[in-house]
Amino acid sequence: MAHPRTKLIRRLVQRLHPYVPGEQPKSKGLIKLNTNENPYPPSPKVLSAIKAAVDGRLRLYPNPTGQPLREKLAKLHRCRPENIILGNGSDELLEMATRAFVEPLRGTIQYFTPSYSLYPVLADIHGARKNPVPLKADFSLPSRKELNRPGKWNVRAALSFITTPNAPSGCGYRSAQLDQLCRWQKGVVILDEAYVDFAKENSLRLAFKYPHVLVARTFSKAYSLCFQRVGYFVGHPGLISALDKIRDSYNVNGLGQIAALATLDNLPYYRSNFRKIIATREKLSRQLTELGFRVLPSQTNFILARPPKYSAKEWLQKLRKRKILVRWFDHPSTRDYIRITIGTAKEAEALVRAAKLIQTVSF
Amino acid sequence: MAHPRTKLIRRLVQRLHPYVPGEQPKSKGLIKLNTNENPYPPSPKVLSAIKAAVDGRLRLYPNPTGQPLREKLAKLHRCRPENIILGNGSDELLEMATRAFVEPLRGTIQYFTPSYSLYPVLADIHGARKNPVPLKADFSLPSRKELNRPGKWNVRAALSFITTPNAPSGCGYRSAQLDQLCRWQKGVVILDEAYVDFAKENSLRLAFKYPHVLVARTFSKAYSLCFQRVGYFVGHPGLISALDKIRDSYNVNGLGQIAALATLDNLPYYRSNFRKIIATREKLSRQLTELGFRVLPSQTNFILARPPKYSAKEWLQKLRKRKILVRWFDHPSTRDYIRITIGTAKEAEALVRAAKLIQTVSF
Repeated sequence: MAHPRTKLIRRLVQRLHPYVPGEQPKSKGLIKLNTNENPYPPSPKVLSAIKAAVDGRLRLYPNPTGQPLREKLAKLHRCRPENIILGNGSDELLEMATRAFVEPLRGTIQYFTPSYSLYPVLADIHGARKNPVPLKADFSLPSRKELNRPGKWNVRAALSFITTPNAPSGCGYRSAQLDQLCRWQKGVVILDEAYVDFAKENSLRLAFKYPHVLVARTFSKAYSLCFQRVGYFVGHPGLISALDKIRDSYNVNGLGQIAALATLDNLPYYRSNFRKIIATREKLSRQLTELGFRVLPSQTNFILARPPKYSAKEWLQKLRKRKILVRWFDHPSTRDYIRITIGTAKEAEALVRAAKLIQTVSF
Repeated sequence: MAHPRTKLIRRLVQRLHPYVPGEQPKSKGLIKLNTNENPYPPSPKVLSAIKAAVDGRLRLYPNPTGQPLREKLAKLHRCRPENIILGNGSDELLEMATRAFVEPLRGTIQYFTPSYSLYPVLADIHGARKNPVPLKADFSLPSRKELNRPGKWNVRAALSFITTPNAPSGCGYRSAQLDQLCRWQKGVVILDEAYVDFAKENSLRLAFKYPHVLVARTFSKAYSLCFQRVGYFVGHPGLISALDKIRDSYNVNGLGQIAALATLDNLPYYRSNFRKIIATREKLSRQLTELGFRVLPSQTNFILARPPKYSAKEWLQKLRKRKILVRWFDHPSTRDYIRITIGTAKEAEALVRAAKLIQTVSF
């Protein structure tokens, strides 16, 4: 079979460097602290609701717009279903936003660095311009004065992504600061709140205050449903309906819809998990600090920590040898850090034990 | 809250007319013959496999590339996993193909009319040129001579979609004829075989014969899994890897992957259903023909039929009054027809009874 003529494939696509997701290891017995999954299972009631739906109805198409879920989310967030669009995970919606709001070649997609490493990939896939704007050395938002400098933040960017609280730093931004940023901005702003349930405050109100602001949420992390791919945007019906026009008819699978609906009926279970994860995060942060790590204050279910003695990359490998997976991002601003997902209290203890051994054992 | 400035939304998107999926009615007691779903449930073994996977693992991300499913499909189709990419339904892959292979503004997306009404929508979303090429009056493929006429088939179109067997006509195309079409074609060809399990032959071999041909398959219709959104492409690794670069990291939900894997372990169950559906289709076609319908020969799980006495649109409404949903496409070539999904033998009998009554009762 001949090689396909490369002219079949768009040059833009040939040049792409795809997003690299965290490792999903096949071997068991690993402590998996690398992809920010929740250590706790979904509520038993959610599992029962899914099981109860596994029958002959799987032959039918799911609700195309996920209407019952949109209605329940609208109640939760005190808005209308028209303010909500569901995605096959929030990643799908982030991608759809590039296609709905940004002109290829001419339009700019803007984001802080470091933040979610998918944004530049989405810009490249769409053929948009990129404007990566460095955060301050402590990963906080630059001031208005700093952002206003020529060549920095572009208030006319067609689409700006802001991960809040941020990944991989884990740092939270004040809602008042985001409010200011949104007020200046002429293009669409997406506040990507994937980790917001572990934070002190959220900025959902900005999605109702500004017609050009969307807030992204997901059932993956806080609600232990990575497997089932359900995310959503909240925002002005004008933006939501534009996204809806380019949405695949049946973009959210049926059992995912059912799982998300049942999740909203069982929020106290999840809130109790948030408290546990936050307690583990705080304890682990203290313990690692005592071991000489520089741990950034986190408002998420992970921490970014600069390890002592060895390089971050070496720590990644040394932890892996001890069957603990963490994540390391090869970017100038994060190269000295490892990102550790907050697991159970037991997993955190195992990590601390491993860290102590790595520091004391010479091999 | 102010209206969003429409300049936030790309003009191309503002002008879009979205794809209209078939109705998914809320009220029960309707006989649903409108969206080509399989009347038979998934195999009990598939339902058990899904239920057995509904546990704490839902908190984890699914396999990003669906590797175990790709491997199993590769065995089935006697190819390598690199020949296969999974989609959130085949619709997602059709959309990805527009982005991987077609330059916006300059590139052309080509398809026969009538065929799957999603293709022009995908072209519009992507901002591609469209080249709709009418089928012959009997819905068969035009000859090479006819296609060669100026302004007809464009052998240089970046992407050509061919639904085979076709929808909504139900007509099958000979693989030899498709082979010829593919041989002429310079751009990518997608043979969309969503309904091929109900046909006399398939054209999968063309995906291995030509490096510019992809075959689309889905678990939705033949394998009773619409709810769970799993489709795939088979083709040259060069095209597959280009699509993979623009794929969302976790585009196929985990329970969907598990359902599809279990389906492949239980093919005899489904093959027996295909035989039942084909038998019902043939019987229903004969009965409707006797009632004065012009029924096109079908190789799918639906039939396109030109009803007597009243217009097709009136039949749609009259059947709906009798709690039977069928589909009607308001396009010049199909306006005189209704499309009827093949349900169970009982549902077909109910349709025949209703058709008899509609013809004889004057109200």
